[in-house]
Amino acid sequence: MPATPFLAVDAGTVERNLAAMAKTAAARAFALRPHAKTHKVVELALRQIELGAVGLTVATIGEAEVFAQAGVKDLFIAFPIWADEGKGARLRALADNVSLTVAVDSAEGARQLAATTAGRSISAAAATGDPAIDAPIPGSAENRRTASSGAPIYVLVEVDSGHHRSGTAPQDAGQVALAAATAGLQVGGVFTFPGHGYGLGNRANAAADEARALVTAVAALAAAGLESPVVSGGSTPTADAADASILTEVRPGVYLFNDAQQVEMGTCEWDDVALWAVATVVSRHGQDLVLDAGSKTLGADWPGWATGGGRLLDHRDARITALSEHHATVRFPDGAGLPGLGERLRVLPNHVCAAVNLADELTVLVDGVAADTWRVAARGRNS
Amino acid sequence: MPATPFLAVDAGTVERNLAAMAKTAAARAFALRPHAKTHKVVELALRQIELGAVGLTVATIGEAEVFAQAGVKDLFIAFPIWADEGKGARLRALADNVSLTVAVDSAEGARQLAATTAGRSISAAAATGDPAIDAPIPGSAENRRTASSGAPIYVLVEVDSGHHRSGTAPQDAGQVALAAATAGLQVGGVFTFPGHGYGLGNRANAAADEARALVTAVAALAAAGLESPVVSGGSTPTADAADASILTEVRPGVYLFNDAQQVEMGTCEWDDVALWAVATVVSRHGQDLVLDAGSKTLGADWPGWATGGGRLLDHRDARITALSEHHATVRFPDGAGLPGLGERLRVLPNHVCAAVNLADELTVLVDGVAADTWRVAARGRNS
Repeated sequence: MPATPFLAVDAGTVERNLAAMAKTAAARAFALRPHAKTHKVVELALRQIELGAVGLTVATIGEAEVFAQAGVKDLFIAFPIWADEGKGARLRALADNVSLTVAVDSAEGARQLAATTAGRSISAAAATGDPAIDAPIPGSAENRRTASSGAPIYVLVEVDSGHHRSGTAPQDAGQVALAAATAGLQVGGVFTFPGHGYGLGNRANAAADEARALVTAVAALAAAGLESPVVSGGSTPTADAADASILTEVRPGVYLFNDAQQVEMGTCEWDDVALWAVATVVSRHGQDLVLDAGSKTLGADWPGWATGGGRLLDHRDARITALSEHHATVRFPDGAGLPGLGERLRVLPNHVCAAVNLADELTVLVDGVAADTWRVAARGRNS
Repeated sequence: MPATPFLAVDAGTVERNLAAMAKTAAARAFALRPHAKTHKVVELALRQIELGAVGLTVATIGEAEVFAQAGVKDLFIAFPIWADEGKGARLRALADNVSLTVAVDSAEGARQLAATTAGRSISAAAATGDPAIDAPIPGSAENRRTASSGAPIYVLVEVDSGHHRSGTAPQDAGQVALAAATAGLQVGGVFTFPGHGYGLGNRANAAADEARALVTAVAALAAAGLESPVVSGGSTPTADAADASILTEVRPGVYLFNDAQQVEMGTCEWDDVALWAVATVVSRHGQDLVLDAGSKTLGADWPGWATGGGRLLDHRDARITALSEHHATVRFPDGAGLPGLGERLRVLPNHVCAAVNLADELTVLVDGVAADTWRVAARGRNS
């Protein structure tokens, strides 16, 4: 085993989680497009495809480049990228090699994407100003011609279903889609991220909000004369509750590993968690001990509803009361015996996506024995 | 300029911050041992030494290895490492090449360190049990002989001055030091990290706690017949208030870059901040906009007293109200004009150490122009 702290993955549990989500999606006739930002690992991406995923979701161009290079043929960048000239050229190169879909949530963003992926910049005024959504922009006919000279770039219009991050209001999705189509992009439909489903007891409401927003968005596209073959939603907490009468596709990410948040939300059981940090007890005082895995290993995510800064897999009544960069302080209940100095403990991060992005590789356990390593190939690919 | 998001460093401000701390330390007769976990950059480490630092502080063996390889000759690992056989061998290799000091905060940890750096493991019972601090352990005479056969390994006893993380109670520092000396380690003195000085209005009290704890610890070592040539404390917030009648050394880390936390605590002015993320406006809704730098660029540190998830250098009345992995949601005051889509903004992370550890390189600005890149050589070196 490596020196602590390190991240370990139980291969059997990952495989079970992958198969279970594939089965659930198939049973409900959802296309499954897992979000690869969680694992950033080529081996896992290819396994997701083998198990029937239609393609992958990613968050950045850099992630898309890693998975395209690895042979994944259908990628959706679920982020409303502002495509400057450099990003436009990279998106063009991707689209010429894979089926590429990009999020848009504004008419300006769509026009910019169309222009730069066609190798043209648009004027700074058009880019950064606030023109009426349907105002003509200089060179739009030219954009259309040039954009269509390469492989198509598909877009999904992002709508806000209650998470209040990016995404247009659902009723405005038609205007955005029309601007995209006019600029020469291929409108594939609509999507949302019901991120407000994270939290205690929020899952069903968030899934209902998701369905309602997507219905409105599909109607808005139809009113603009555009179809929505793809209606995409879903996250690990809301995937089970996603409305199969509305959604065509789900995009869960965390499900293959799970984490302390998913356990505390009730999305999964303890036995479904496939990734943990292995840490060593380095200090003990009273009912507290200190582990050598802190926020630079686990990540600093700590939602207000969480019971602590992560959980101990083998000491479920203990609480992580503080995280420093290299320390986790763990409080054990009064009277409970504490692990000894030098013992290795398994720690579930609150948010597995953040923990994985801090590691260069994952140690793969088969029947509890280190059998392989997976490189976190897309680690740090933020742009 | 690189694609957004990326981290930029203003070279002139860094140089000014480095020089100012060197001058302050010299004026107060403190040895300066900057904590290199903040920057993890070889070029900056060497500049700190050029400006008079006696050596560097690091958090992990991996960081120590990077800076030793780069030519730094005096390193203090300010973490109570539990030295298993692998770590013991790496520490031995370091000690044979540089002046190496390691934190200890328990007699058991000190004995383990002595044994494994001498190439011997100690029994699991002695390692993980809870023997009386002064109990003899098997092979201690052998440990002494073998440990002293290579270059010495220095230890500083870590004491808790109120942060309640690792560190023994100050009055127990003598017992830990005696165990270390008996096991064959070279006791160099005592240290503490007054981390409770982070927060609003806590700096002076934390510095006073620091001095009080160190006085007690020095007395405890003296009672055990041991001297404390090194009495080390200090952090960026408390360095100004450190007690020069007690401390011989300070170990600030953040001061060369600063960050949103330091601005909000009043440790520095806005003009003293030397590092920021450059992010692009990708979405706008009402008085909110969304930037393409989230917690995978800025880190997720968000103390309860902070006004948000970071600060905008050029929009000081705006607030970061939410961070996702790739999104920062920013609220502007009612009636304020918002930057346009596609504009690039400068974002101060709350905690610069976390942000730097997420980046492979830093873009170095000279007079606002990208002039160089610094590799984050020790990024991810957690073990």
